[in-house]
Amino acid sequence: MRIGAIEAGGTKFICGVGNEQGEILERISFPTEAPETTLEQAVTFFRDKGVEAIGIGSFGPIDLDRSSPAYGRVTTTPKPGWAGFDFVGYMKRFFPVPVGFDTDVNAAVFGEAKWGAAQGLDSCVYYTIGTGVGVGVYAEGKLVHGLVHPEGGHVLTRRHPEDPFKGVCPFHGDCLEGMASGPAIEKRWGVKGSELPDDHQAWEMEAFYLAQALSGVILLLSPKKVILGGGVMHQKQLFPLVRKLVARNLNGYVVAPDILDEMDNYIVPPGLGDNAGLCGALALGIEAAK
Amino acid sequence: MRIGAIEAGGTKFICGVGNEQGEILERISFPTEAPETTLEQAVTFFRDKGVEAIGIGSFGPIDLDRSSPAYGRVTTTPKPGWAGFDFVGYMKRFFPVPVGFDTDVNAAVFGEAKWGAAQGLDSCVYYTIGTGVGVGVYAEGKLVHGLVHPEGGHVLTRRHPEDPFKGVCPFHGDCLEGMASGPAIEKRWGVKGSELPDDHQAWEMEAFYLAQALSGVILLLSPKKVILGGGVMHQKQLFPLVRKLVARNLNGYVVAPDILDEMDNYIVPPGLGDNAGLCGALALGIEAAK
Repeated sequence: MRIGAIEAGGTKFICGVGNEQGEILERISFPTEAPETTLEQAVTFFRDKGVEAIGIGSFGPIDLDRSSPAYGRVTTTPKPGWAGFDFVGYMKRFFPVPVGFDTDVNAAVFGEAKWGAAQGLDSCVYYTIGTGVGVGVYAEGKLVHGLVHPEGGHVLTRRHPEDPFKGVCPFHGDCLEGMASGPAIEKRWGVKGSELPDDHQAWEMEAFYLAQALSGVILLLSPKKVILGGGVMHQKQLFPLVRKLVARNLNGYVVAPDILDEMDNYIVPPGLGDNAGLCGALALGIEAAK
Repeated sequence: MRIGAIEAGGTKFICGVGNEQGEILERISFPTEAPETTLEQAVTFFRDKGVEAIGIGSFGPIDLDRSSPAYGRVTTTPKPGWAGFDFVGYMKRFFPVPVGFDTDVNAAVFGEAKWGAAQGLDSCVYYTIGTGVGVGVYAEGKLVHGLVHPEGGHVLTRRHPEDPFKGVCPFHGDCLEGMASGPAIEKRWGVKGSELPDDHQAWEMEAFYLAQALSGVILLLSPKKVILGGGVMHQKQLFPLVRKLVARNLNGYVVAPDILDEMDNYIVPPGLGDNAGLCGALALGIEAAK
């Protein structure tokens, strides 16, 4: 079976064709522009591929409520042309096949649960820390949607005692995304994170914010794996810092060997690396085909 | 069908017999002492009731992993005699019927989803704010367990700018439970919350902490209903204060009519009142019987 996959990011689209084993057989990528301009390229790519289903992991917010007249649409984004755009409907016009649709981060967590770091587990959370901060939640073997869908990048955190930075979130100022996203790091220190040395104070501060969010999600959901992806997490020195601070925050309260003894194997990078999103979209397509 | 229900609290046990309509037909309550002493009374109560299943909502931490040799046990509690006690095994020795077992707060959220404020919804969260702070999570039609089970009462929150109180949590000091539980209110103000006037500053401060936790859970899980129960929430003046501060924290970010326009119907007291826990245990028993 050949399945189409779309990782629809806010700045970049990646389209791929894969199989049920999670292998991506070919792919293409292009910038996210107005919806028709962008999706025309996707349609051209998929045209002769004979896909039997398509999975889409999309930037949001999106409407995931199957009983809603707006199901399959991007909703309130400021991105030109995308607010209200019928993403699923557009693809279905060209490809009359089952289409799976979820957030980009839910796709990533689903891919990781199927073929990645959380393979075989029935719960995990996936954080992407990059231009923004997003969270995908997989619990009891299901992707969590609820009223809208998780937006856990915007939780409030305590301020680092040596951090006077105001935060970059237009909604909340100093929420997690406001303090720990790539743009927050760049604005706070005046250079891109990738230009800061590994032992710069920036990373301890970054870990401080991430660890608070992770402690919160571990207490609230008790996930079986916590996966941290996105551009900022290419800074591998963050992982030991985050693990240490999560352990300090929890202070032995959650009695589970995975957390007390196996933290290095509990808070981890994506098993699929930067393919988590695209493989996750593939997994959504496979689900849709069922 | 007659089903047994046990709401096993840290200070009080409530046993009841009910039916599939969620009606409690009779009940008894007694203090929580050593396990055998306590459960002997439960066994005596249920002996001639002809129950076809039993549901237990228990104080924790407890082992809910059906593949674990410790399934059905209370685990690391400091409560004398209970650490490691085989709760489910004990009941099954006397009553060879299906036994449902979950946390007290998961029982409550399940009861509310079946017959209470979240009836018919596939997601909601239930907070109990009393001697401690506990959280039950129901997502995509399932009770969330994960690695252990939710312990969302211990998330970190920002400190109220006028609050110098150190907090009462022995693990985390000023976590949510440390700052917002009944004992925290009593220690901060020198009198029990029930003796403070409705317009006392204590309630604005209490709402400040609760609203942070709720904003976090709304962002992370997007629940379809948020239910606040427990002794502290008998202070009904807290509800409008909490709703106002949640709206302020979210600042319009989560675009859902339930939150933007219907907050009074979104953050609510338990529909089952103080019966949420017992009815929830009944619901667990009904599930086990299936």
